[in-house]
Amino acid sequence: MVRQRLGEFEFIARLLRPLASGLPGAEQLGDDTAHLAPPAGHEIVVTTDALVCGVHFLAHHPPDLIARKALRVNVSDLAAAGCRPWTYQLALALSDDIDDAWLASFCDGLAFDQREYGIDLSGGDTVSTPGALTISVTALGLVPAGHSLHRAGAKVGDAVFVTGTIGDGALGLKASKGELEGVGGEDVAALAARYLLPQPRAVLGPRLRGIASACMDVSDGMVGDLGHICSRSTARAVIDVERVPLSEPARRAIERDASLLETAITGGDDYELLFTAPATQRDAIAELAKDSGVPITEIGRIEAGEGVTVLRDGKPLKLERTSYRHR
Amino acid sequence: MVRQRLGEFEFIARLLRPLASGLPGAEQLGDDTAHLAPPAGHEIVVTTDALVCGVHFLAHHPPDLIARKALRVNVSDLAAAGCRPWTYQLALALSDDIDDAWLASFCDGLAFDQREYGIDLSGGDTVSTPGALTISVTALGLVPAGHSLHRAGAKVGDAVFVTGTIGDGALGLKASKGELEGVGGEDVAALAARYLLPQPRAVLGPRLRGIASACMDVSDGMVGDLGHICSRSTARAVIDVERVPLSEPARRAIERDASLLETAITGGDDYELLFTAPATQRDAIAELAKDSGVPITEIGRIEAGEGVTVLRDGKPLKLERTSYRHR
Repeated sequence: MVRQRLGEFEFIARLLRPLASGLPGAEQLGDDTAHLAPPAGHEIVVTTDALVCGVHFLAHHPPDLIARKALRVNVSDLAAAGCRPWTYQLALALSDDIDDAWLASFCDGLAFDQREYGIDLSGGDTVSTPGALTISVTALGLVPAGHSLHRAGAKVGDAVFVTGTIGDGALGLKASKGELEGVGGEDVAALAARYLLPQPRAVLGPRLRGIASACMDVSDGMVGDLGHICSRSTARAVIDVERVPLSEPARRAIERDASLLETAITGGDDYELLFTAPATQRDAIAELAKDSGVPITEIGRIEAGEGVTVLRDGKPLKLERTSYRHR
Repeated sequence: MVRQRLGEFEFIARLLRPLASGLPGAEQLGDDTAHLAPPAGHEIVVTTDALVCGVHFLAHHPPDLIARKALRVNVSDLAAAGCRPWTYQLALALSDDIDDAWLASFCDGLAFDQREYGIDLSGGDTVSTPGALTISVTALGLVPAGHSLHRAGAKVGDAVFVTGTIGDGALGLKASKGELEGVGGEDVAALAARYLLPQPRAVLGPRLRGIASACMDVSDGMVGDLGHICSRSTARAVIDVERVPLSEPARRAIERDASLLETAITGGDDYELLFTAPATQRDAIAELAKDSGVPITEIGRIEAGEGVTVLRDGKPLKLERTSYRHR
């Protein structure tokens, strides 16, 4: 089969330019630079996530879902900062096996999620690589100046909350590698889908402004990520593992193999929001959960000290590791 | 030999965090996001360039120079937009062969050029790759709102100018691959150095505001890049190849092999500024060149029509290609 290969400039003109048409300062990608005017009274929030074939996704994954995951992991970071998505830059290092059909599907995925999250492409770079396909997205968000959420800010006495369910990302990775023995086909599919396509809490994040004292998204594993809030806030977190919200497929997988509980709370790729708030905000948080349709669960509390203690039946649980590390 | 390998978080804490200490909103890299407040009345200019081992640099190149090139190609884009550097995000996909000594040298290079260009790290992402080391930089610059330079804007009757000398980048790549036969050792070294470490016109760029009608940097090859100005400006450029400024090493290499002239004007990696300006600005441009110590040479003119015509002895020169393409 002869692969159809668009040239670099044709790829930009035909597939990428339409993704930038909603943003005047993107210059239709006709310049090397985008020229952006943030609205008065706002600060910009910037974040970068890189995805590598063989590490963050696999070569046979659908290109549109790869694209959407690349955008969504960044949208999740913006949500955790309490801000709304604005624009992104895309750096693509394309390996030899990438053909036009792949690129078209990849760009369809970007277009879909641009509409979903109200974010537009403003530029980037497309290069060739002799190695693994690499996708790097730098996303910019907007937030009223001084009102963004941070990891620092958790106070002794605050409660610890998490959105949605925890562990589906890490169990989904195992599921898509065929490593979840004895788990039913539907559960495998549900978990794998959650790994392939995160659901960033883009609407909820900005609504936590004025409620949360500290916030981040769960990308490297809940326990390790909570550790970041603790170290940035000079405090200790104590959580009750029984209160950590699990999806039904995750619960069934853990019932079959108890060791997967640790995978669930220390694995990555959940993209839920993990935040702390004063106890006085409990009612507001319950209201927000009801209003947004996103479950929010209280899982623990902030105390004086450092580090994260995970309790099971009231006794500290010893964990092999707390999060995924790249090196 | 056992390679020393810092963990991901230690790498960030020890080597990257100091690079972000000058920028309050970078949160000491302790958050997933940077929170940046652009000064009132400014727009932000954003650009991305990715460099891949084996494509944009070679594995044996000094890591500090690789880092500086990664920053400088972005600084060059900001200069071409007439703006001053502000901050950058760094996405690193690290291959297995990268050890701590490499990382330390890489970060030394970043630190050096951060001081040189007044730009600070605000965040990024570090991941592992089974393939080629990939460095992606997204740089943000600041410019008074409405005053940035663009590729569009060249008018019929404008003159075409270029800074410094053209062709050293492409000839330097050939030189570093040992492909410049018969060229003296000093010339090989001078050209190779120019390829390894571009000299972006960071001071000159902002001073072209109010003078240049269109501007870009020469990264993919002068003729092709001038074609971008033409298509964005709906105009034609005519340049005289005899007026294109060459360095002494480039001139000697071309005297030995006349075919290298085409390499010089269509090859990439010069990172000079290519701009158009009304003839009435000639004196201001001469003054600017004198004042900044950067030679500026008039090489042609803008006419009605489209495309770029390169004249030699007044006759159109037929070129094999006009610029470097990645696909």
